[in-house]
Amino acid sequence: MIVVMKVGSPEAEVARICQEFAEWGLTPEKIVGKHKVVVGLVGDTAALDPLQLQEISPWIEQVLRVEQPFKRASREFRHGEPSDVVVPTPNGPVVFGEHQPIVTIAGPCSVENEEMIVDTARRVRAAGAKFLRGGAYKPRTSPYSFQGHGESALELLAAAREASGLGIITEVMDTADVAKVAEVADILQVGARNMQNFALLKKVGAQGKPVFLKRGMSATIDEWLMAAEYVLAAGNANVILCERGIRTFDRRYARNTLDLSVLPVLRTLTHLPIAIDPSHGTGKAEYVPAMAMAAVAAGADALMIEVHPNPAKALSDGPQSLTPERFDRLMQELAVVGKAVDRWPELELAIA
Amino acid sequence: MIVVMKVGSPEAEVARICQEFAEWGLTPEKIVGKHKVVVGLVGDTAALDPLQLQEISPWIEQVLRVEQPFKRASREFRHGEPSDVVVPTPNGPVVFGEHQPIVTIAGPCSVENEEMIVDTARRVRAAGAKFLRGGAYKPRTSPYSFQGHGESALELLAAAREASGLGIITEVMDTADVAKVAEVADILQVGARNMQNFALLKKVGAQGKPVFLKRGMSATIDEWLMAAEYVLAAGNANVILCERGIRTFDRRYARNTLDLSVLPVLRTLTHLPIAIDPSHGTGKAEYVPAMAMAAVAAGADALMIEVHPNPAKALSDGPQSLTPERFDRLMQELAVVGKAVDRWPELELAIA
Amino acid sequence: MIVVMKVGSPEAEVARICQEFAEWGLTPEKIVGKHKVVVGLVGDTAALDPLQLQEISPWIEQVLRVEQPFKRASREFRHGEPSDVVVPTPNGPVVFGEHQPIVTIAGPCSVENEEMIVDTARRVRAAGAKFLRGGAYKPRTSPYSFQGHGESALELLAAAREASGLGIITEVMDTADVAKVAEVADILQVGARNMQNFALLKKVGAQGKPVFLKRGMSATIDEWLMAAEYVLAAGNANVILCERGIRTFDRRYARNTLDLSVLPVLRTLTHLPIAIDPSHGTGKAEYVPAMAMAAVAAGADALMIEVHPNPAKALSDGPQSLTPERFDRLMQELAVVGKAVDRWPELELAIA
Amino acid sequence: MIVVMKVGSPEAEVARICQEFAEWGLTPEKIVGKHKVVVGLVGDTAALDPLQLQEISPWIEQVLRVEQPFKRASREFRHGEPSDVVVPTPNGPVVFGEHQPIVTIAGPCSVENEEMIVDTARRVRAAGAKFLRGGAYKPRTSPYSFQGHGESALELLAAAREASGLGIITEVMDTADVAKVAEVADILQVGARNMQNFALLKKVGAQGKPVFLKRGMSATIDEWLMAAEYVLAAGNANVILCERGIRTFDRRYARNTLDLSVLPVLRTLTHLPIAIDPSHGTGKAEYVPAMAMAAVAAGADALMIEVHPNPAKALSDGPQSLTPERFDRLMQELAVVGKAVDRWPELELAIA
Repeated sequence: MIVVMKVGSPEAEVARICQEFAEWGLTPEKIVGKHKVVVGLVGDTAALDPLQLQEISPWIEQVLRVEQPFKRASREFRHGEPSDVVVPTPNGPVVFGEHQPIVTIAGPCSVENEEMIVDTARRVRAAGAKFLRGGAYKPRTSPYSFQGHGESALELLAAAREASGLGIITEVMDTADVAKVAEVADILQVGARNMQNFALLKKVGAQGKPVFLKRGMSATIDEWLMAAEYVLAAGNANVILCERGIRTFDRRYARNTLDLSVLPVLRTLTHLPIAIDPSHGTGKAEYVPAMAMAAVAAGADALMIEVHPNPAKALSDGPQSLTPERFDRLMQELAVVGKAVDRWPELELAIA
Repeated sequence: MIVVMKVGSPEAEVARICQEFAEWGLTPEKIVGKHKVVVGLVGDTAALDPLQLQEISPWIEQVLRVEQPFKRASREFRHGEPSDVVVPTPNGPVVFGEHQPIVTIAGPCSVENEEMIVDTARRVRAAGAKFLRGGAYKPRTSPYSFQGHGESALELLAAAREASGLGIITEVMDTADVAKVAEVADILQVGARNMQNFALLKKVGAQGKPVFLKRGMSATIDEWLMAAEYVLAAGNANVILCERGIRTFDRRYARNTLDLSVLPVLRTLTHLPIAIDPSHGTGKAEYVPAMAMAAVAAGADALMIEVHPNPAKALSDGPQSLTPERFDRLMQELAVVGKAVDRWPELELAIA
Repeated sequence: MIVVMKVGSPEAEVARICQEFAEWGLTPEKIVGKHKVVVGLVGDTAALDPLQLQEISPWIEQVLRVEQPFKRASREFRHGEPSDVVVPTPNGPVVFGEHQPIVTIAGPCSVENEEMIVDTARRVRAAGAKFLRGGAYKPRTSPYSFQGHGESALELLAAAREASGLGIITEVMDTADVAKVAEVADILQVGARNMQNFALLKKVGAQGKPVFLKRGMSATIDEWLMAAEYVLAAGNANVILCERGIRTFDRRYARNTLDLSVLPVLRTLTHLPIAIDPSHGTGKAEYVPAMAMAAVAAGADALMIEVHPNPAKALSDGPQSLTPERFDRLMQELAVVGKAVDRWPELELAIA
Repeated sequence: MIVVMKVGSPEAEVARICQEFAEWGLTPEKIVGKHKVVVGLVGDTAALDPLQLQEISPWIEQVLRVEQPFKRASREFRHGEPSDVVVPTPNGPVVFGEHQPIVTIAGPCSVENEEMIVDTARRVRAAGAKFLRGGAYKPRTSPYSFQGHGESALELLAAAREASGLGIITEVMDTADVAKVAEVADILQVGARNMQNFALLKKVGAQGKPVFLKRGMSATIDEWLMAAEYVLAAGNANVILCERGIRTFDRRYARNTLDLSVLPVLRTLTHLPIAIDPSHGTGKAEYVPAMAMAAVAAGADALMIEVHPNPAKALSDGPQSLTPERFDRLMQELAVVGKAVDRWPELELAIA
């Protein structure tokens, strides 16, 4: 921490402040500048809040954090090495990581009925997906919109898993549902709206399934990594970060602004794998392919793409869903770029 | 709903679309323009998603909602009349509403110990506050920061209520805690980070205590009212909206941007009472008085202000807390403006 | 400036960097922390760019500016005293400043014809305005919209000045027009879209009339003060800052978000007078009165309000203009709050 | 245009409004809904402002534009065909367009001296660039920062053009400089801060050199296309759009948020070629390669990349500049992806 004093701070006050910091177990070091005095704080400052320190004296102008606020999520925590998140699925283990082939997750926004989810699972598997997404519990802006089929949808996901061999990823919205969802899901998703639902983060951190943590609509990179830190600190080391578009001033065409720069930014900050969701990230099926291509070229470790057998009849998020045919075609397009950057998985010879 | 067709849409396709809408129980009406054809949809469109309708045909360019998406929260739902939210407190009922005196809520960010919370309660009551705020469960960006004393803090709030006669407002963050918090609190607060925690909204909507619904950091007015709609639709008519600053591009000085224009905007949209929180809204104690003055002049129904006996030693949010002395002075300043706009409460003659 | 080194920086590299800084005429001071080394730079750092310094070595993690980037605009430049901007008008000098009565500027978005502008001038003067606003050159999003009557409108403003005795404030958009506009205007306005039109800032800084500098739609406080610094550095000490709403994620109801927190924020940073424009700040006439009230209570030094004799027929910005009748009423409402905070001008007895 | 009436609008008022629209030469068509009445306006509505129409009656709730506000910039204006912008350079004509190979523009932020600019030109040409960028006039946040060498830098650009055969692109900031800059430059750049400097747009629209129009920091897609419309309407058909990052709430790591979704969005809206500037778009050299890769995969028609022989000593924007070595390597990486998507130029056999 760096404590910047206001111009004209009395020497006695600076001394008093240094004294106070020393009592907190920190070692203060004073630098006298031409206009200003600055105090560097040496010691364990990670738990301190810069704004809080500022309250110690009205003569403090600014307190600047020099260390990152996150620890377990930081790249340094693993001495610069990326972490692999290994997820067992009926078709075998799938690995998310910077040095792994890109993992594709596909499926509908919400689970509507058995035929639809099983059929979609088979289709996306055939196209190369490793995981099936599908919501049992749906966060909807309106209380009058379809809220997901809940528990019964979990059973349908289990059936689709059985039928296709794909891993299952589905969202959990309430601490009360975590155990139930974790029974069926191979990966638990925490949605953008719950990124700072700290009760939920602690709960998913205390169970054993990997966590897919979407970035909040207006979460900074630091806040996002601190949300991951909640899960990691609760004992769960398997976190995958997923960018899904941030909220900006222009929402007329793309509903959100997909922030692909998180790819190079997060690489230097964290060891965690990074997924991109171009479907929510743009909100419109016709924009999805270009953004998926961009994500692959920019170094994403995983893609999450909405696919629905009949988008026009979808109970939720139809406008951003691809048809299975379009998804097939997209996977072929992605393979070309994915191979060019040496991140595309070998075609498996399995019979779905 | 208004369905705008693309230039050159085949007549047969427009006819097909009209047919499909008719099957949904809507009455389509076609307007033929110079360049474009537009279809107006008459009927119950409140549950429809404009983006979803768009999927019906690739020839649809845009679907525009003409009706508001919220019903129970709308001003029209009460035929233009504002609603009063009456909250019983030991000192008697307090009424929040557009035609009522301004209600002041004050207290520390978090409940630290009995002496501190009881003392603060007495001081803010003496200055004119009607409610004590104080967090038992605290949403904190970092898992390593103080998370609130939880259940034991609820008991301290009960003691402060007893000692001061003030009503209690405190935040609930987990559906599992709703019953427990509702036992002590006179008003349940849903924080900004949980504004779209729909499981929580349903749960607080299903119990009897009034709900204080903070605006999410990047929630639009419509999303905020839809969150209120969740509570109202679950059966709880007593919702108070609270603006607490939105996230914008400049956070160097004020941490959030307090959006006071919600006051005139919400007045025409909803019947619900509106509170302003200048403490979170700016993040810095020195900016609070000017913004509190502004809120009173612009027509706020309530103010929520952080007061801490010793901000420098506060376990959370110290930088934005006023000292009791500064709060006393502020209440006198506010009274001058509050009286000028005819919204300030008469001084009670009670002995605290 | 504070230079933060990366963990594990070689001592020799730190030494090399210190050497390099010394060659630039700065005095580096090293602080050795538990994890990190930090170098404080003492000397004249105002012209240095933190990001630039960072390039000196790949071992530098961050460079933090400790001094404000603005000088002449800073409060410290006037030893904590606010500056008064005195503007001569036919009705006598008008003073903008923190310790002065609030100055009201009113008038239409654009000058349409002589009758309309002269009539509006008389009406707003009668209601208490000291300046007439009215655009000769209009920044319009569309090339097909009315662009202002240009030079001929300047003559009409001169006529309105003559007829009403009010000072004139009007926008200049092109360096080529500065001299022409300065002949007629008592104050030159630089609009939000030109806040970083540096050629224009230099030009208005090099002439003698006061400058009314609107905040850019997405300008930070620092960028805004640096724009003022351009004018001040060019030799013109008479700058008035005007907040007119910033761009945020929600533009459905209010077109911009009026950021009233600039009032307490700027007070501590700068000596310059601060105006608020609730008309552009909200974009809708019905929101203007509440925001004007808020501005007065929060400590604005001036208000700029759009008034048009017939908003429905206005050639530009009709929706946000008040009728003269509504403006009369608003001025009476503002007077109540303005007197309560001791900032309202005495009624002059002049006969207009 | 679609005019939505408020609930309960008197029939006589609707009739009056229709009458008024008819007098404006529009053909109003009434749709009577269950709750609301809507009036469709048929005719030439492009020049009308929706907010203005709203003023016609207090019973109007909303006016929605159905047509795009831009004409010449619209894809429909060219019947769905993209336009090619052909720019003569000493090395031969270079074509920007959707069906053309990607054009790379590279060079330093500002022109510092002859050796540096000529040398950089040769190096970037050898790596495959077709245009040299370099600022003679620089928009700088601070008046105390280096402002560009101005006119003398234009001569150095001419020398670099001569030496390398590359086309020149450079920024013009003042209407007074347009003629001078157009003498040397093959493409005139209008910077982000001047995107709505309408005087400048008209001026560059009235001369013959192509215009490179950067998106404003907080410009919506519509505003950007309307800025292009200014240039097109003034008679200059050769406009290239350039995304360079927008301003969002998180600027800690990437300085701006590069909005790559403009690629699929603009494709459907406009026929104009689209360039991406990952250097300004992220503000940091280490993020540039990933974003350049993404831009190529997502379908950009051109790239603008900052390259400086010695970023640490650059007079401006050093932190976001690549070294020539890194640029060489990046061009090879881009070629792999560019070929995969069939947009990479054949290597020319010229001797630089």
